[in-house]
Amino acid sequence: MGYYSEPLKQEKVIRDPVHSHIYIQDQIIMDLINTTEFQRLRRIHQLGTTSQTFPGAEHTRFTHSLGVYEIVRRICNQFQRNYPSQTPGDGNWDDSERLVAQCAGLLHDIGHGAYSHTFEHIFKTNHEKITQAIITNPETEVNQVLRKVSPDFPNQVASVINKTYPNQQVVQMISSQCDADRMDYLLRDSYFTGAQYGKFDLDRILQVMRPYQDGICFKISGLHSIEYYIVCRFQMYLQVYFHPISRSMEVILGHLLLRAKELADSPKRSADFHPDILMPFLNGTFDYEHDLKDYLKLDDGVLNTYFSTWRDDSDSILADLSQRFIDRKPFKSAIFTDENKPLLPKLQNIIEETGFDPEYYSESDNSYNQPYDVYNPQSQHSNAQIELIQKDGSFVELSQASLLVRTITGKDIGDSRFFFPKEMLQPEKNVELFKPLYDNFQSYIQNDKIKQPEEN
Amino acid sequence: MGYYSEPLKQEKVIRDPVHSHIYIQDQIIMDLINTTEFQRLRRIHQLGTTSQTFPGAEHTRFTHSLGVYEIVRRICNQFQRNYPSQTPGDGNWDDSERLVAQCAGLLHDIGHGAYSHTFEHIFKTNHEKITQAIITNPETEVNQVLRKVSPDFPNQVASVINKTYPNQQVVQMISSQCDADRMDYLLRDSYFTGAQYGKFDLDRILQVMRPYQDGICFKISGLHSIEYYIVCRFQMYLQVYFHPISRSMEVILGHLLLRAKELADSPKRSADFHPDILMPFLNGTFDYEHDLKDYLKLDDGVLNTYFSTWRDDSDSILADLSQRFIDRKPFKSAIFTDENKPLLPKLQNIIEETGFDPEYYSESDNSYNQPYDVYNPQSQHSNAQIELIQKDGSFVELSQASLLVRTITGKDIGDSRFFFPKEMLQPEKNVELFKPLYDNFQSYIQNDKIKQPEEN
Amino acid sequence: MGYYSEPLKQEKVIRDPVHSHIYIQDQIIMDLINTTEFQRLRRIHQLGTTSQTFPGAEHTRFTHSLGVYEIVRRICNQFQRNYPSQTPGDGNWDDSERLVAQCAGLLHDIGHGAYSHTFEHIFKTNHEKITQAIITNPETEVNQVLRKVSPDFPNQVASVINKTYPNQQVVQMISSQCDADRMDYLLRDSYFTGAQYGKFDLDRILQVMRPYQDGICFKISGLHSIEYYIVCRFQMYLQVYFHPISRSMEVILGHLLLRAKELADSPKRSADFHPDILMPFLNGTFDYEHDLKDYLKLDDGVLNTYFSTWRDDSDSILADLSQRFIDRKPFKSAIFTDENKPLLPKLQNIIEETGFDPEYYSESDNSYNQPYDVYNPQSQHSNAQIELIQKDGSFVELSQASLLVRTITGKDIGDSRFFFPKEMLQPEKNVELFKPLYDNFQSYIQNDKIKQPEEN
Amino acid sequence: MGYYSEPLKQEKVIRDPVHSHIYIQDQIIMDLINTTEFQRLRRIHQLGTTSQTFPGAEHTRFTHSLGVYEIVRRICNQFQRNYPSQTPGDGNWDDSERLVAQCAGLLHDIGHGAYSHTFEHIFKTNHEKITQAIITNPETEVNQVLRKVSPDFPNQVASVINKTYPNQQVVQMISSQCDADRMDYLLRDSYFTGAQYGKFDLDRILQVMRPYQDGICFKISGLHSIEYYIVCRFQMYLQVYFHPISRSMEVILGHLLLRAKELADSPKRSADFHPDILMPFLNGTFDYEHDLKDYLKLDDGVLNTYFSTWRDDSDSILADLSQRFIDRKPFKSAIFTDENKPLLPKLQNIIEETGFDPEYYSESDNSYNQPYDVYNPQSQHSNAQIELIQKDGSFVELSQASLLVRTITGKDIGDSRFFFPKEMLQPEKNVELFKPLYDNFQSYIQNDKIKQPEEN
Repeated sequence: MGYYSEPLKQEKVIRDPVHSHIYIQDQIIMDLINTTEFQRLRRIHQLGTTSQTFPGAEHTRFTHSLGVYEIVRRICNQFQRNYPSQTPGDGNWDDSERLVAQCAGLLHDIGHGAYSHTFEHIFKTNHEKITQAIITNPETEVNQVLRKVSPDFPNQVASVINKTYPNQQVVQMISSQCDADRMDYLLRDSYFTGAQYGKFDLDRILQVMRPYQDGICFKISGLHSIEYYIVCRFQMYLQVYFHPISRSMEVILGHLLLRAKELADSPKRSADFHPDILMPFLNGTFDYEHDLKDYLKLDDGVLNTYFSTWRDDSDSILADLSQRFIDRKPFKSAIFTDENKPLLPKLQNIIEETGFDPEYYSESDNSYNQPYDVYNPQSQHSNAQIELIQKDGSFVELSQASLLVRTITGKDIGDSRFFFPKEMLQPEKNVELFKPLYDNFQSYIQNDKIKQPEEN
Repeated sequence: MGYYSEPLKQEKVIRDPVHSHIYIQDQIIMDLINTTEFQRLRRIHQLGTTSQTFPGAEHTRFTHSLGVYEIVRRICNQFQRNYPSQTPGDGNWDDSERLVAQCAGLLHDIGHGAYSHTFEHIFKTNHEKITQAIITNPETEVNQVLRKVSPDFPNQVASVINKTYPNQQVVQMISSQCDADRMDYLLRDSYFTGAQYGKFDLDRILQVMRPYQDGICFKISGLHSIEYYIVCRFQMYLQVYFHPISRSMEVILGHLLLRAKELADSPKRSADFHPDILMPFLNGTFDYEHDLKDYLKLDDGVLNTYFSTWRDDSDSILADLSQRFIDRKPFKSAIFTDENKPLLPKLQNIIEETGFDPEYYSESDNSYNQPYDVYNPQSQHSNAQIELIQKDGSFVELSQASLLVRTITGKDIGDSRFFFPKEMLQPEKNVELFKPLYDNFQSYIQNDKIKQPEEN
Repeated sequence: MGYYSEPLKQEKVIRDPVHSHIYIQDQIIMDLINTTEFQRLRRIHQLGTTSQTFPGAEHTRFTHSLGVYEIVRRICNQFQRNYPSQTPGDGNWDDSERLVAQCAGLLHDIGHGAYSHTFEHIFKTNHEKITQAIITNPETEVNQVLRKVSPDFPNQVASVINKTYPNQQVVQMISSQCDADRMDYLLRDSYFTGAQYGKFDLDRILQVMRPYQDGICFKISGLHSIEYYIVCRFQMYLQVYFHPISRSMEVILGHLLLRAKELADSPKRSADFHPDILMPFLNGTFDYEHDLKDYLKLDDGVLNTYFSTWRDDSDSILADLSQRFIDRKPFKSAIFTDENKPLLPKLQNIIEETGFDPEYYSESDNSYNQPYDVYNPQSQHSNAQIELIQKDGSFVELSQASLLVRTITGKDIGDSRFFFPKEMLQPEKNVELFKPLYDNFQSYIQNDKIKQPEEN
Repeated sequence: MGYYSEPLKQEKVIRDPVHSHIYIQDQIIMDLINTTEFQRLRRIHQLGTTSQTFPGAEHTRFTHSLGVYEIVRRICNQFQRNYPSQTPGDGNWDDSERLVAQCAGLLHDIGHGAYSHTFEHIFKTNHEKITQAIITNPETEVNQVLRKVSPDFPNQVASVINKTYPNQQVVQMISSQCDADRMDYLLRDSYFTGAQYGKFDLDRILQVMRPYQDGICFKISGLHSIEYYIVCRFQMYLQVYFHPISRSMEVILGHLLLRAKELADSPKRSADFHPDILMPFLNGTFDYEHDLKDYLKLDDGVLNTYFSTWRDDSDSILADLSQRFIDRKPFKSAIFTDENKPLLPKLQNIIEETGFDPEYYSESDNSYNQPYDVYNPQSQHSNAQIELIQKDGSFVELSQASLLVRTITGKDIGDSRFFFPKEMLQPEKNVELFKPLYDNFQSYIQNDKIKQPEEN
């Protein structure tokens, strides 16, 4: 394995606020950036509804993808300088792998769509499958560019992204617990939200990274830098990614798409409710191979344009949820635990009594993530654990070397929240009539947590 | 004049990467932010096509408007602390003006629409008129919130923005050569583009600002900070705002909208070319009072959705320009001067001979700005000049005190460029057939400038 | 209690890279800064030998002291704005306490001397006692300035610093687990070392701080910001403050001072070894009251001037250690545990056999710190624990609310290291002769840790 | 010409807040850093008395020298990658020049001493001559390290620094109008002072730099980055380097050293005034070859230690000036022009009448610099002008291409100031007696400028 591409005579640069500049050194990379499928990422925000909480977070998957490419490029440079392979299989870095690694870094998110998380949840699509399709389908511009390297090159790039590529050094650059993807998004999300928490020390981590027989490891002298990176990731989950306001907007979005799906299925709306670009998804006929073009037409602007229009729809639930989403009227929420989860149906009853359909106006959402995980043969989503190499060549697994990491290893971090209309806490109308209902509802909540009301 | 608003019991903060936090201290400000007209600014990028050159520049008019509000708030704080008015008309700061100033800062751009500059140029709309309409039209949410202060408050806020408000201190906070608007956008555009050039010293400028009888002046000890701010502004124009790639994308956008207008007017497309939301603009029937709701439906996503669809339109020019815009295929350009402007028709002829309609595939664009201007009674757009106050209370006008500023005072900074398809320089097809045409075209260009070709 | 000071007509600013500007608003503060005792802090580095590892860390106790003052000032502003006391004892903030708080913040480190930690260890002085003396001794300029407020004001300021002042809000601003002192030094040390680890979110923490009956607490919404601050502190200890190279330079410094003390005591050097300014310390006659003037003459430059001269001293140990210190020739080190501590005497024997006096050329050093501690009635140095206030007014102690903090609460973080000359690992001379000794020594060390050598 | 050095197996890094890390890749560079002459730079502040105005500016010539080395290293990398020489004399970069360039960058300031500017002025020493001596004198550690490369290598390095080295690319890296030295000090002084003005775009300038036949030029696409760099430099001069408070402290320092020189020459003090390390300079016997060791003993701490002691000297002028310097009691100043320079003797007379010796208590100081200069055959200190290379290979000189630069080209930027004791403006004693004198003095000053008093 090993790919050749003509380098650009003059390296080109793209200005980027996170990495200062992105350096483009191959015509292939330039051509991939110029494809319609890649340019489309300019119209898909990286963080979906998060900009509703952190308004600076308007950045897109386009700049993130460039950033991942740039980190991969820097890793390759460092590996080639300090650990160049002398003989095949010596565990060092073979620089002919650089091109496939850089392409995979650039394209790893090419299948993402508008509000991916919620969209996929409602419509059962899968952006990873679409990534594979875009890379391997001969009709895409991306595929046509990749084929210039060799007929099998698209498959190689795709296999890096789905982790079946034989060289684990390349795979782990893109997908592991300390990979170019995660490192770029932490720094980038931190920069654009203005949250301070994600600013780990990229330069230092790149210095202590090294290739070895089974993939990528880190020099033990970098222990604390990696520990800090894990903590930064942990903080970003707690403070940014799991922020209740953003999740509340996602809840509204999900209910909104669900309602649209129901209307599209409803015979009486078949004549007048016909959002063209969304139809394959609303009626469940989407096919990864034949409808790829349709999928590629979807972006944040297209969805928002529909929602914006639907604010005037005749269906009052669709119209109300669209307005809440577009004009940012988030639901409120309260934390619940397994213990008091049985109280939720009671709360839903009260919500219903005040006139809201609880199917659309309430939701329980669990947001949890493991900041770091060690190898577990039973786990479906096992990630390579982080290995530290000592002076004598022996390895220590990260959580063995770091007290802080050990604490959060394998732990689910996050919370479970019950979402409901803000009106339940701050009623604007019907106040006198429904006051006993509102009071009853509020008696279940203390310090933003669900609790058993006290007896009178 | 003087307005009262109930302060929030608990001040609220919005995270912002430029100012760290935006502090909201009045219910009125909170309510304005939550209006549908203001939330709409989230869907309108601050810099239009600039993100095609600086991909980080995805920020919107929403965050900029918050930033202007925040700078106004800080100016009021400083004025109230150091220069509180003792008697009316003493030239010091009357803090009952704070609310109208903060509202005007927040709302100064509320009338902006998608790709305003080009849109207005083609459709003869005016975002300043729309700003006035949104604030004063009793049907908008913004107006309804402002009226809570007093029936005349909307008019007061509108008059600050159109500069007819009697208190020049308030007017100049929002509109002058060193105002909250310009200070926020320089810092913000610098942050999001990643360009280094706009990072003047906001803290220092806020310190040396002071109210006086005729408006706002600056302590002479801040001379160099203001000089540097002017230079930063100058640099941002040269390096960011006038970047030829962004202007090229604007040229394409303008031609695209023009073509759409022609198709909408064309009888044979009347049946099938009917972009609903755009129709009042395409057919020229837009009315500021009655069609405000239509205007408010327009945002970047709506326009991009049209363009995206038009890539498959039957009209080949509309389809091609849409594709160039959406998939980022910028025109190339060369600088021309008055002296060699007469050569442009010859270049347009060659463009036409290679098969491009020069009306849609060429353009000459002048981008000039005056980084700083002194008072000129003849000028239509005169801005208050920057006055520096000395220890003994006398004034010096900025360009009299600064050599650097004097150099660029009243100078038009920028260039005139002729735009044309990239194919004229790097033809991809018909190369052999049209080679003499391409060669001829290229003989007119040297070092990115138009020139008279040399005789053979 | 409550102090009045004439505010400055024009507030003054000092440029500071960490806080942008320090705002001086009272003549008393300005006068304190201009005292000879405070100006002396310009000549004492904040981090002692740390600049030998992180060369940027040349900052002094002068700028740190200004920074602590500035944070105190900002806390007072926030308290006065959001929690002004209405009636004495209502648990809110009484702004007449501002002056004593700001003075205490500014002066809290006024007693620090050159290389305080090591100096005190060797000479049994105590910078806290000296701080009290400088503030209360009527001969100092500091005392004279403070007395202008009231005769008892110096004692009040001193009592805040030694924590006996009755108002715990004032005391905890300066001395607690999340106080102005720690917050400034973390940010400042992070800025000047260039380490990324200390950049917690000061703005956010200042927002969630609030006064209450028993001192200062934090709104629960700031939980993660405080958690992150604790982790940043933890990282700074591990990566900066406990860095083995800096500790090694401290070991050399300590041995150097010890040797000087011995020479000063030695009759045969009484004639020619007489470092004037150091004599009260070398011969143990230093008295806090009468010799304060002598102490105030000591600064980093004075000590370094002695060491520099001593490089040519006739005593070979003093000369060699001075050279190692001045020309930065650090000792090497290896980690040991209680288990293998008994091996250290063997290592010292080998060191001695190669010609180094182990009293001066080896040392075992334990560097441990508790990043966070909860209240323990037995502990001598108990610090107020961090209390979080919930919406309903109830409190949660930080480690109860944060998994990460709980993990490190009360834990000693750091390591024990054995220091020895670099020559033991990289002998430059006598190599053949002493090779078995060097090999034997090195067999006790693996992966920078002391271990039992393997049997042959 | 071309030098070889064994690269380090493992590259080493030094943490630096300006460049993030300094990368050390050769044993020779490591060894030079570890010499006693280079370590000495840790004890010499980069900006002398500037930290009296900007207290953060405590950084030393040590970190600046590392920074210059690092920029040289990055320039060599870029040159070797994009413009590697194919045949000798082809105008491209010969990487065997890298070592001499890096050593020269590291050592260019090795001869600087404590408060160089003032010290040299008073004692007629020359740090450039000392730099040459340290590099070429066989007794220095620096020379011994350099000789390991080749016997002539020290001379080669010295010739780069004194600009006689034949390869102008190497010379201009270290000494030209846009060289590694200036680029590092602007960024570093900006970082440590906290002034915002010096933050030009280093990454961008490094990208557009290229070697050519006669030295180093810049691609025309980098025009505005270089323009901005020139403006930043201009701003740093105006706002930081020429700050009147720092210059005032320099004036005091100069007078203080002058007084010490006079006392050392005075027979009646020959017994008791004998500051050992300073004697060769005070009595004018310093010799560059034989007294190099003495010079190397001088650092900021040594001088400050003397000044600190002299505060108690029996000579009242020496004692008073020492106190003003050590305890920071700056002189005041006012700007004068050629026109009103004749008024200065009158002011000196008044100063004398109030009891101050005007020789020690007044001074006129001209601080001017040319931010950019074009070639002038008459000029003694001509610097290579900055050349921009266009697409067709032709050159444009910077001031021809940039309006802003043209404005300040060849202009002397700065001012002339007259310094005098603060007491003349704010008398603390003898007020009634001398009031007419003070009033008279003050009538000559308005808005910080000297002026002819108005007639009564």
